[in-house]
Amino acid sequence: MAEKIQASIIGASGYAGGELLRLLLDHPHVEVKQATSEQHQTKFVHAIHPNLRGRTQLKFVSAAQIEECDFLFVSLPHGSASSKMPELVKLAPKVIDLSADHRLRDVAAYEQWYGEPHPHPDINAQFVYGVPEVNREALREAKWASGAGCNGTATQLGLLPFKRAGVEIVSALADIKAGSSESGNKPNLGSHHPERSGCVRSFAPTGHRHTAEVQQTMGWTRDDARIQMSVTAIEMVRGVLATIHVQPKEKLEEKDLWKIFRGAYKDEPFVRIVKDRQGIYRFPEPKILSGSNYCDVGFDVDPQTGRVVVISAIDNLMKGAAGNCVQAMNVMMGWNESAGLGFPGLHPV
Amino acid sequence: MAEKIQASIIGASGYAGGELLRLLLDHPHVEVKQATSEQHQTKFVHAIHPNLRGRTQLKFVSAAQIEECDFLFVSLPHGSASSKMPELVKLAPKVIDLSADHRLRDVAAYEQWYGEPHPHPDINAQFVYGVPEVNREALREAKWASGAGCNGTATQLGLLPFKRAGVEIVSALADIKAGSSESGNKPNLGSHHPERSGCVRSFAPTGHRHTAEVQQTMGWTRDDARIQMSVTAIEMVRGVLATIHVQPKEKLEEKDLWKIFRGAYKDEPFVRIVKDRQGIYRFPEPKILSGSNYCDVGFDVDPQTGRVVVISAIDNLMKGAAGNCVQAMNVMMGWNESAGLGFPGLHPV
Amino acid sequence: MAEKIQASIIGASGYAGGELLRLLLDHPHVEVKQATSEQHQTKFVHAIHPNLRGRTQLKFVSAAQIEECDFLFVSLPHGSASSKMPELVKLAPKVIDLSADHRLRDVAAYEQWYGEPHPHPDINAQFVYGVPEVNREALREAKWASGAGCNGTATQLGLLPFKRAGVEIVSALADIKAGSSESGNKPNLGSHHPERSGCVRSFAPTGHRHTAEVQQTMGWTRDDARIQMSVTAIEMVRGVLATIHVQPKEKLEEKDLWKIFRGAYKDEPFVRIVKDRQGIYRFPEPKILSGSNYCDVGFDVDPQTGRVVVISAIDNLMKGAAGNCVQAMNVMMGWNESAGLGFPGLHPV
Amino acid sequence: MAEKIQASIIGASGYAGGELLRLLLDHPHVEVKQATSEQHQTKFVHAIHPNLRGRTQLKFVSAAQIEECDFLFVSLPHGSASSKMPELVKLAPKVIDLSADHRLRDVAAYEQWYGEPHPHPDINAQFVYGVPEVNREALREAKWASGAGCNGTATQLGLLPFKRAGVEIVSALADIKAGSSESGNKPNLGSHHPERSGCVRSFAPTGHRHTAEVQQTMGWTRDDARIQMSVTAIEMVRGVLATIHVQPKEKLEEKDLWKIFRGAYKDEPFVRIVKDRQGIYRFPEPKILSGSNYCDVGFDVDPQTGRVVVISAIDNLMKGAAGNCVQAMNVMMGWNESAGLGFPGLHPV
Repeated sequence: MAEKIQASIIGASGYAGGELLRLLLDHPHVEVKQATSEQHQTKFVHAIHPNLRGRTQLKFVSAAQIEECDFLFVSLPHGSASSKMPELVKLAPKVIDLSADHRLRDVAAYEQWYGEPHPHPDINAQFVYGVPEVNREALREAKWASGAGCNGTATQLGLLPFKRAGVEIVSALADIKAGSSESGNKPNLGSHHPERSGCVRSFAPTGHRHTAEVQQTMGWTRDDARIQMSVTAIEMVRGVLATIHVQPKEKLEEKDLWKIFRGAYKDEPFVRIVKDRQGIYRFPEPKILSGSNYCDVGFDVDPQTGRVVVISAIDNLMKGAAGNCVQAMNVMMGWNESAGLGFPGLHPV
Repeated sequence: MAEKIQASIIGASGYAGGELLRLLLDHPHVEVKQATSEQHQTKFVHAIHPNLRGRTQLKFVSAAQIEECDFLFVSLPHGSASSKMPELVKLAPKVIDLSADHRLRDVAAYEQWYGEPHPHPDINAQFVYGVPEVNREALREAKWASGAGCNGTATQLGLLPFKRAGVEIVSALADIKAGSSESGNKPNLGSHHPERSGCVRSFAPTGHRHTAEVQQTMGWTRDDARIQMSVTAIEMVRGVLATIHVQPKEKLEEKDLWKIFRGAYKDEPFVRIVKDRQGIYRFPEPKILSGSNYCDVGFDVDPQTGRVVVISAIDNLMKGAAGNCVQAMNVMMGWNESAGLGFPGLHPV
Repeated sequence: MAEKIQASIIGASGYAGGELLRLLLDHPHVEVKQATSEQHQTKFVHAIHPNLRGRTQLKFVSAAQIEECDFLFVSLPHGSASSKMPELVKLAPKVIDLSADHRLRDVAAYEQWYGEPHPHPDINAQFVYGVPEVNREALREAKWASGAGCNGTATQLGLLPFKRAGVEIVSALADIKAGSSESGNKPNLGSHHPERSGCVRSFAPTGHRHTAEVQQTMGWTRDDARIQMSVTAIEMVRGVLATIHVQPKEKLEEKDLWKIFRGAYKDEPFVRIVKDRQGIYRFPEPKILSGSNYCDVGFDVDPQTGRVVVISAIDNLMKGAAGNCVQAMNVMMGWNESAGLGFPGLHPV
Repeated sequence: MAEKIQASIIGASGYAGGELLRLLLDHPHVEVKQATSEQHQTKFVHAIHPNLRGRTQLKFVSAAQIEECDFLFVSLPHGSASSKMPELVKLAPKVIDLSADHRLRDVAAYEQWYGEPHPHPDINAQFVYGVPEVNREALREAKWASGAGCNGTATQLGLLPFKRAGVEIVSALADIKAGSSESGNKPNLGSHHPERSGCVRSFAPTGHRHTAEVQQTMGWTRDDARIQMSVTAIEMVRGVLATIHVQPKEKLEEKDLWKIFRGAYKDEPFVRIVKDRQGIYRFPEPKILSGSNYCDVGFDVDPQTGRVVVISAIDNLMKGAAGNCVQAMNVMMGWNESAGLGFPGLHPV
């Protein structure tokens, strides 16, 4: 096995940062050099990420102590990542930013959805949107890549096959069921267990920001209302299920859909088509994906109306965040795309 | 207080039957005469419905032992209710059938959705669809009434205000999140806790039978594809949340929607409009409705596209089954419509 | 029905305060006059307790605005209640304090368990420990009563029959499983849903303060180590299950235990003995008690060792807090002890 | 890497069998040859274990088709394993039986706890109890090993340090909180989601069979009542938490306990001592162990009474079943003891 590269994580105390640590600590080609947290500096990383107890003696350091490395992951809150990016990109030849700050190439769309102009459009322009299934070739040459939004990833991987197959979509409505870890690790009344437990909470009935990423991937303009997203928070910690109600322009039958989806995904290492005639896991379900990097996609079609229901499931912290970024790193470094991402998920769970 | 009437329940060991028992045992105008269960005859009802321990010494009897009474509730499986109905209606002057067998006036629609001709169209024709918000006047005179499907109830109470206000709907897509008690009390692999727990399972992406009830209430024909329903089973025992994505023909603003919903529901005892600017329960949520007969409805509108998202929550065993039927009985008997339905739900829960 | 008394609640925005509101708003002999909250003053109570929407137009007021009333409930944090009690008791002829401040008659025990001297031992001396099953006669004459700790209530109601029957206990170990609402409504990292969800967390392996209440009820001194308590937080919002491992001095058989428990509880309106040979609810379980005021108790005995396992379940916000206090009020006022406490709990749930 | 051995699994459709498949499919030294299931023969293993979709094209075969292999895992129901063992041991030079049938060396204890004489005491005598922490040296030479009971494993790993340190225990009461996967994959009313969800169910207050394994490991006779176990089923799919209330003969202080536990476990690859002064994961918790092979142990001591509370957490399907058996196989084969057991568990989860 070749020498390992040294990777560091800016903002490693959050949930995505912790998941990155878990993955990188066991990655065959990576050594974790530094992990920053202002709040927890000097503490062992396992004091915050208890699953890592006994796996590493690494301690959090302040971002002020960060050193040059081979690969830098930035896992800072939205807004904070872009403002620090001019300095951060000097630290390593390759950078992946997990935040929402560098996902949209169209800075006008950024301003529309995030409510303020992008602080560094020049830097933003050099980022590659880091979903390998969408952008693999560009990633191979990229020095900087963004992560992708979890709900946006589940949705676009459900719609991408139509684009690849040249099937026109009249409307697509993604009704998303989301877990509590999507909202990060800061407690508030809405996340307080007696309030959050068992909820079915209309979190963002309209206006979800990840819409912009789906539009970008599908090649739709920012005023194109073909894609609508609604997010409902349910009793779940990890996981996203996107139920995407698609009205194609021309009527599709089940065999057409098999062809469309197989065409897009038959060689993808992390997308599985799940559509069975029997059993209880006939369609994608997020619970068996916890900890895995899979995106499971399936579909159903209403023979009467031609409405297609695409069902797409991911673990929001894996394919929706850290796992996808490790996959992107593997592409950027020319490694086996599955390196360090071997965990298949559990059953029962 | 006046003398109580005597009510009996055919099929009282199921979940809806148990909820009926709970409600009727504390109803100010009702005495429970008999409760049948073939499987559990001779057992105390609290052996099956443990919440009733200490509340009644009633025992299940066989349907063969059923006697005449003042009001009969029929809570048998689909198909079984209609085949026995000719005999059952002789037992009491007033009957409510909770099953799906007598909900649709159009027996052609029944045949289309349930896959076989209705066995007794003549009897079916005399039933009134028993949702008071939809059908109050007819219920006042009814001798026989049906219950309503839980998912259908949540959906139609979200859409009814548009009909009442004469607002034309281009399309309505109800994405429904449902609890495990919807599927009844018979164990199977899909309901086995290690498999069902934490699931986000696409139960009926297309073709849900309750669609027929919504069409009937909205005055849409059975081939009218304006209403589409998808059901996803989530981690929840009781409860339905319907997220109904509505495209109205003409653009509506928030104030229009307030007017439409207040117009329909301002005097309804069991429908609350829930749409707050702050707090964590800004939209309807089923968990605070467990045990209550409320249907909470709210809405949001996308200013860009005019898409309206109506959110409707019920307890499937209450407003979606037993509670609604007690409300219907109260209407049929000319009692206070809220009698016996006073429990408001819990918080936190 | 006679005229209603006017009751007010100091500290009505917490979980026990909200449950009191729910109960008092439907109580046949009570009208809620005022409900205080410093943080939420001027807001509708249903803004904080969403289950009360449509049930009352009451708004929170500041404690500074509190007026005289017939019955005062104090639901303030520990320490705060006792420091304000000299003023509060002037407001009403009858007072119940739900806090931990006036539960222990022995102020030395108070100091030992709560780490500081009691601020008003004279006032404390006039309080009656407000568990009707323990103290009914004293409550009939009481002007001031305390509530009781939820875990302490579950434990003492499991042990009281032994005392009543004169059975000597060598040791009693209460292993308690508790829900998240026990810790109140203030968010923190430990209550953050992704962290609290699914936990089995050793909250207080030793040294639980409610031990003092159990000792007081059993007549054991504060250095008597016969009672030990451990609390584990589990996935549950409401509910306590106490598994109490009892070693009696003399060997008891099952029929002895039936006699002991029936002797203590056969006439109690809110204690049910649950010990069935078949079915799935053979022993007490908290989930079917949510919203009810029952304490269900059951037992098992190891024929080989004579160890008795007493199992005791309550809803911590009902029999463990607000419900018990309404029951105590009913006793203090000479009303039907069950008034306003009729909800039996749900199944399934 | 050296050539892989061929391993087969008898009874691979159950939960432990599925977990074995997951582990062995990614084990560096093992190739899965055959996996049997009578009910599911000819189906893909991923039809039953959906997490394995895309990981293997293996199909279940009937036990009648089983061939010789290098290592055989037997994962049959209790009773079935021992009756078939005379034939099964001919299939491979090394065998591990996950069932309860060959765990107890004392066949009189077997008869007492399992209610019938052991069918093959001669074979049973040649089995080694397969918990490496208890029996590592014997396992190195073993040809046949048993698995261990999940609750028994959590309990004995909490008590073993006392035995190793020569500390006499007066009494030990293990109060165990268990998940639903412990009861296997056969649906019944008790496992039906609406009934099992949110339960806190006294499953075995007394008389739990795993007591026998703890007695065997601790060197206590089968009539020695020093160890008592109670099992309560809680809302959890995977996981065991044993809260073990230990009364040592001589008073121990915290530093003594550190010495006792470090002495036993400092070199163990899969036992971690978890006892922190701050943070929310200060004691062991099963949820962060899902999928990992760790047993986390911690302790607390009551300074007043000397009662020690040992807290021990495992994933019942991993360290409590399949993971432990893979660890035992690694010992039996002379491989790195951690081979194939690298997954650390998730956080948050």
